[in-house]
Amino acid sequence: MCELNAFVVGPGKEELFLESVDIIRPEDGSVYLRSLFGEEKRFEGRIKEIQAIKRKILLECPK
Amino acid sequence: MCELNAFVVGPGKEELFLESVDIIRPEDGSVYLRSLFGEEKRFEGRIKEIQAIKRKILLECPK
Repeated sequence: MCELNAFVVGPGKEELFLESVDIIRPEDGSVYLRSLFGEEKRFEGRIKEIQAIKRKILLECPK
Repeated sequence: MCELNAFVVGPGKEELFLESVDIIRPEDGSVYLRSLFGEEKRFEGRIKEIQAIKRKILLECPK
């Protein structure tokens, strides 16, 4: 399986936002995420970087 | 391994843009991608959706 874990990046830390993410869809000023298990969350901010090998989605708040 | 394949989505088709993608970084009006093998490409457009289970990054041109 290839699910990813989403983290919110803050100053010097990463906070788990959603585990086992399947779908990531940038929308206007936010990011929609859906997990393998159908859990849906919306992050008010943007994708900073995705690291597939580390299975990480890094999210950041707008500056 | 959990690398992803990036496709450009056009009307009724998906065209391969870069295989075995590790890093995806949205930048201002473009998307930077780097493969497992160090190949780097920049797509002038944006991320439409990422489907982790299907291992797909869907890219689209600006409207």
